[in-house]
Amino acid sequence: MPAGPLTSVGIGDDAAVVGAPSGSVVAAVDLLIEGRHFRRDWSAAYDIGVKAAARSLADIAAMGAVNTALLVALAAPGTLPARWATDLADGLAAEAARAGAGIVGGDTARADLVLLSVTALGDLAGRRPVLRSGARPGDLVAVAGPLGHSAAGLALLQAGRRGAFAELVAAHRRPAPPYDAGPEASLLGATAMIDVSDGLLADLGHVAEASGVQVDVDSSRLTVGAPLREAAASLLAAAPSSRTEAGYPRPPMTPDSPAGSPQAMALEWVLTGGEDHALVAVFPPGTPLPHRWRVIGEVRDGTGVTVDGAARRGPGGWQHFR
Amino acid sequence: MPAGPLTSVGIGDDAAVVGAPSGSVVAAVDLLIEGRHFRRDWSAAYDIGVKAAARSLADIAAMGAVNTALLVALAAPGTLPARWATDLADGLAAEAARAGAGIVGGDTARADLVLLSVTALGDLAGRRPVLRSGARPGDLVAVAGPLGHSAAGLALLQAGRRGAFAELVAAHRRPAPPYDAGPEASLLGATAMIDVSDGLLADLGHVAEASGVQVDVDSSRLTVGAPLREAAASLLAAAPSSRTEAGYPRPPMTPDSPAGSPQAMALEWVLTGGEDHALVAVFPPGTPLPHRWRVIGEVRDGTGVTVDGAARRGPGGWQHFR
Repeated sequence: MPAGPLTSVGIGDDAAVVGAPSGSVVAAVDLLIEGRHFRRDWSAAYDIGVKAAARSLADIAAMGAVNTALLVALAAPGTLPARWATDLADGLAAEAARAGAGIVGGDTARADLVLLSVTALGDLAGRRPVLRSGARPGDLVAVAGPLGHSAAGLALLQAGRRGAFAELVAAHRRPAPPYDAGPEASLLGATAMIDVSDGLLADLGHVAEASGVQVDVDSSRLTVGAPLREAAASLLAAAPSSRTEAGYPRPPMTPDSPAGSPQAMALEWVLTGGEDHALVAVFPPGTPLPHRWRVIGEVRDGTGVTVDGAARRGPGGWQHFR
Repeated sequence: MPAGPLTSVGIGDDAAVVGAPSGSVVAAVDLLIEGRHFRRDWSAAYDIGVKAAARSLADIAAMGAVNTALLVALAAPGTLPARWATDLADGLAAEAARAGAGIVGGDTARADLVLLSVTALGDLAGRRPVLRSGARPGDLVAVAGPLGHSAAGLALLQAGRRGAFAELVAAHRRPAPPYDAGPEASLLGATAMIDVSDGLLADLGHVAEASGVQVDVDSSRLTVGAPLREAAASLLAAAPSSRTEAGYPRPPMTPDSPAGSPQAMALEWVLTGGEDHALVAVFPPGTPLPHRWRVIGEVRDGTGVTVDGAARRGPGGWQHFR
């Protein structure tokens, strides 16, 4: 496992010791549970490692911090092939390294299913953390990274279409958050930031609530690319009975979704699909933004999240205890 | 939840921000799984919270560090009573506060069983970490905190004797590691340290291996108190068929254990019982030790762990994948 440049004590002792040069540490933990967040028949062990790491690493980036280390706790059945576990470790290590972090500790235990808990640590390099609560009316809302790709990939897998639209299926299996966009947003003066784990509208809702503002998304500025529209068209053309598969509790489309057209279905993925771990940040008006930050809306007086100025019916994203 | 004196961003954002005054952070994670580490019919939710927190907090103390923060991930069935979860949180918070730490973040997800992942963070206050690898021949081995109490309590619960020997049953349900003994050992010049989570012999085995030495335990110096001997006598007097209960995978006594007498059974708990989270440290000879540090052995040239100079047959402690 990669130790990471700031690690002085890594795996093998009671605890790890990791540098915190700016005198504080940023920390977040996420669970990944078989059957809820991944399926072993849909994703290779390496992919699950990448996904588990990305989920926590993105939380650190969303504070404007640089990742330094991961701790990984794994519960698994005694029958789990050793190769599966080493492939998982390879995926965790690769994604940690992509974010500049080491893997410094962990725990293992036996359980009837595979479950991962990943704790990420990071450093702010002297900057203030970018919270959810700093958005002010007039600020711009911008996103870095893809939206809706993971949800589209999941819909394809649920429909048994794992060979089609390989890019989208890969986005579901191995999200690739733009970690360095987090510190970049902080340096650009971001007033609020969050990573899109539950869905754009749901996560902007967290920003709106924490900041005491309204966030309006301009749907004409959302990128609904050709692969998303084509995947939606392909799924809608198939028989309805082939579009869902039992046993996976996260339907990408709910009965009250406006799923009548490929464009509508694709837009739904963009607005409510989670797990891409794009970063959404709020900037003061007039902030010159690098190309990868796409402005998608603005902050207003009020509460909640609107799309094109109107409240939106239907679920905003994933809820763990619906 | 207690925020902790060093927490600048606590629960509610993408990640927490916790002070790391000495420029590095000590971090450890542990899993606690229903049916393996606890049973809901044997322990109240509050007790399970205490136990989950203690397990990780003790790892930080065993590095010679002071605890600063916990992150807690909880997976649970949707049918879990809300009161159970708040009682669990109360237990986590109380034990964190006892160690001087805040609860700064977490995650929740639905699962078929209750599972906790607790990450502890700590600060070394400028001291070097006390590793497992620093023991040298001639050093003294000393312990702070109880040994064998949790194992005795578990044996009583397994025998359906939850009303007897309340102190031992409580030690199993709510271990109380002497957290401040960790930094104390560091200041006293400890060359190695570990917390007793798997059992004294097993954990000293980790020190022996990491340090490249032999650790000899002098059984005459181990405290086998009256409650342990009396609990053993009481259990041995009961019918054998009442001494085990199905469904809990951690037998305190194995078929090849020398369980013929109360004294032998009690000594077995002390040598191989885990989960008390006592701290075992190694000190240079002649180190003046405060009263709570009881010398129990010495470090020699060689490998492995011996008791009274002889290798010991039978299991040394808990193994997750036996």
